[in-house]
Parts: sequence; structure tokens; C-alpha cells
Amino acid sequence: MKKKDLTSMKEDKIELQETTISSKHVFDGTLLQVYVDDVKLPDGSHSTRDWIKHPGASAVVPVFRDGSIMLLKQFRYPPRKLFLEVPAGKIDAGETPKTTALRELEEESGLSCKNLEQVGSLFPAIGYADEEIFVYVGWDLDESNKQTDDDEFLINHKLHFSDALKMIESGEIKDGKTICALTQTYFWWKKHKPFPIDF
Amino acid sequence: MKKKDLTSMKEDKIELQETTISSKHVFDGTLLQVYVDDVKLPDGSHSTRDWIKHPGASAVVPVFRDGSIMLLKQFRYPPRKLFLEVPAGKIDAGETPKTTALRELEEESGLSCKNLEQVGSLFPAIGYADEEIFVYVGWDLDESNKQTDDDEFLINHKLHFSDALKMIESGEIKDGKTICALTQTYFWWKKHKPFPIDF
Repeated sequence: MKKKDLTSMKEDKIELQETTISSKHVFDGTLLQVYVDDVKLPDGSHSTRDWIKHPGASAVVPVFRDGSIMLLKQFRYPPRKLFLEVPAGKIDAGETPKTTALRELEEESGLSCKNLEQVGSLFPAIGYADEEIFVYVGWDLDESNKQTDDDEFLINHKLHFSDALKMIESGEIKDGKTICALTQTYFWWKKHKPFPIDF
Repeated sequence: MKKKDLTSMKEDKIELQETTISSKHVFDGTLLQVYVDDVKLPDGSHSTRDWIKHPGASAVVPVFRDGSIMLLKQFRYPPRKLFLEVPAGKIDAGETPKTTALRELEEESGLSCKNLEQVGSLFPAIGYADEEIFVYVGWDLDESNKQTDDDEFLINHKLHFSDALKMIESGEIKDGKTICALTQTYFWWKKHKPFPIDF
């Protein structure tokens, strides 16, 4: 069993890297772009990889002055369940992740914010998608007109940040990006403290 | 803007639910099964949903007596990057999530464990996949022979649980399931304390 320091990430990448031999676009959907690639493995042998090309996404944790945050209840078709989620959405062509964050925050929650900072990012499904989700925290919030996409049906759900963390613990929050976004924002907030929150 | 308690999840589900009109299996891959469904939205209008059918997966946080855990460095083809991850893998036909957890722990990290408890679960990509990942914590670990799948190339990386949490904060851990698994295990461990860890 090899034990190495994380500083060897670069060296390990070369050792573990899989390289593309050929790539085929096998499904062109409304949402999903699916590819099947032939790849060369580190030992020189070949394998295939099915994967989804995704433009990336942004997610925002909107924090109010009283330490509460705004989440959204949304029905998600693939798992056929209702989830409590942070406002988030796909990066459109020509957008920066920050522009997407501001747009989705306003479209989905009806909020705009004067301050928006990136707290991290995550890759939600590294086994089959290249998607990266950029995570932001927003504060100094203003309410504006709520507009949702035609096929989005959302219910706003305001709760204290500390209660949201308890809902990760209790299993009531099960959406991966929301668990990650709240965790990354919690760490960022404890370090930068734009204003005090009683966690 | 509607504000409701989470206790209304059931009522909200009816209000927000999308129902299947028809479903078509559009891609049958080695890894991915892609469907395109026609759905009826809550307002009665129609839309399409591209989605991936997934058998589910299990992930394990293996905790040693000294408070260290075993993660794995693995190159992931879709994002073309190296990630630090918890041992995890797909549920095979006929397996329970617990059986998968024990098998993947042994295959990927060379560890077996006397104690294994479920700490939670998460849905990594609710926008396009039905996958649920069941998260376990394992302790009283024994090393055994390491066996990896033919096309898996892994490097074990042992580190203290508290250092792994710091690597979520620093952004060095970016895999969604790993951030969620460590967060859920941290909460579970603080509550159940099988033995003390200096977080």
C-alpha cells in the first residue's frame, strides 16, 4: 500500500491518468450530451468510458441579516422526489459562473444581493459527468420579482442556517450539491465573518 | 412568496409533482442508461426530461483507532482530474447497499471492518440522475489483500479525519460524494462516539 503526501498530486496524475484515443457523441438530448470514449489506461490497456458533457453550474447560499437562509423546495423528476435545495442552475453560453449565480438566485428565489463571494466548488458526479458546480454565498439581500423558468415549480423555504445544518444531520437535506454548498459556506463564513451568525 | 413548514413536504409533493406520460430508453451504455420521458407538469402542461437510470451506490468512511481515515486518489475520466475520494462503488445486482459498502471497501482500500453503520444517504445529481448513494462509517479495521477492478487505478491516502475536514475547507477535496460522506459521518460520529476523535 503506497502512502504519499497530497503534494504528489501532480506526479500521481501522470501515474493514474487515462488518455483519450477516440470520442463519439452518442446522444444529443435537450439536457444531456452523452459521449462514449475509447481510452488508454495507465498500464497501456484499453477501456471505454461513457460520460456526460455538462456546461457547469452555479449555486448560491443567500444569507439574511438574522442568520437565516433561503432554500427552495423542488420536485426532481429523475429521483421522483421533493428536495430542499440551494438556488442553482446551469451556466448558459456566454455567462461567467458569477453571472449565473446572480441570475439563478433572482429567477429561483426572487432575491438579488449586493455582496456575492465564491466559497468553493464541487464535482457532483465524477464517475459519469464533467460537471463542476461553483458555490457562492450572497448577502445584503433584496427581494425583487420572482420569475421562474417555464418548467420550474418552486416553493421558497426560509430557515436559520443552524437549522439547515441540523437538517443535514437528520437526513432531511439529501441533495448532494446542497449538503456541499452549506458545508463550504459554513467553513467560509466561520473564517471571513461578514456579520455574526449564531451557528 | 409562500412560506411553509417542512412538515408540508407531502402536501407540497402533490402540488409540485411531475407525472410520467411515456418513457423511452434512448441509450444503453456500458455504464449509462439514458431515458427521455414525456411528463405532465403541475399546471397540466407537458415537457420532456432526459435522465439517467442508476442502480445506486455505497460509500464508506473507514475510521482507524487513531482518528485517521483512508481515502483514495483516483483519476476520473469525465472531468479529467485526480480526486481524493472515499471508497465507493455501484450496487451490483442482488446486493444490499451494506454488502456493496463492505465489498467496495475491501476491493478499493484493502480494508475489512468489524463495525459498519449507515450514517445517511445523498442524491448526487438530482437534475439528471436517480442515483442515491448510501453512506457508511466503518471501524475496527483489518487490512487484507488489496484487489482493484481491472480498470481501476487507485492510490491509498491515509490522513486524520480533522485534516480531511480542513481539506474540504481549503478546496482540496472537491468530490461531491466525499464532501457529503465526511460531513454526514462527522455529524454521526459527534452524536454516537464509538471512540473519541480529536476533530
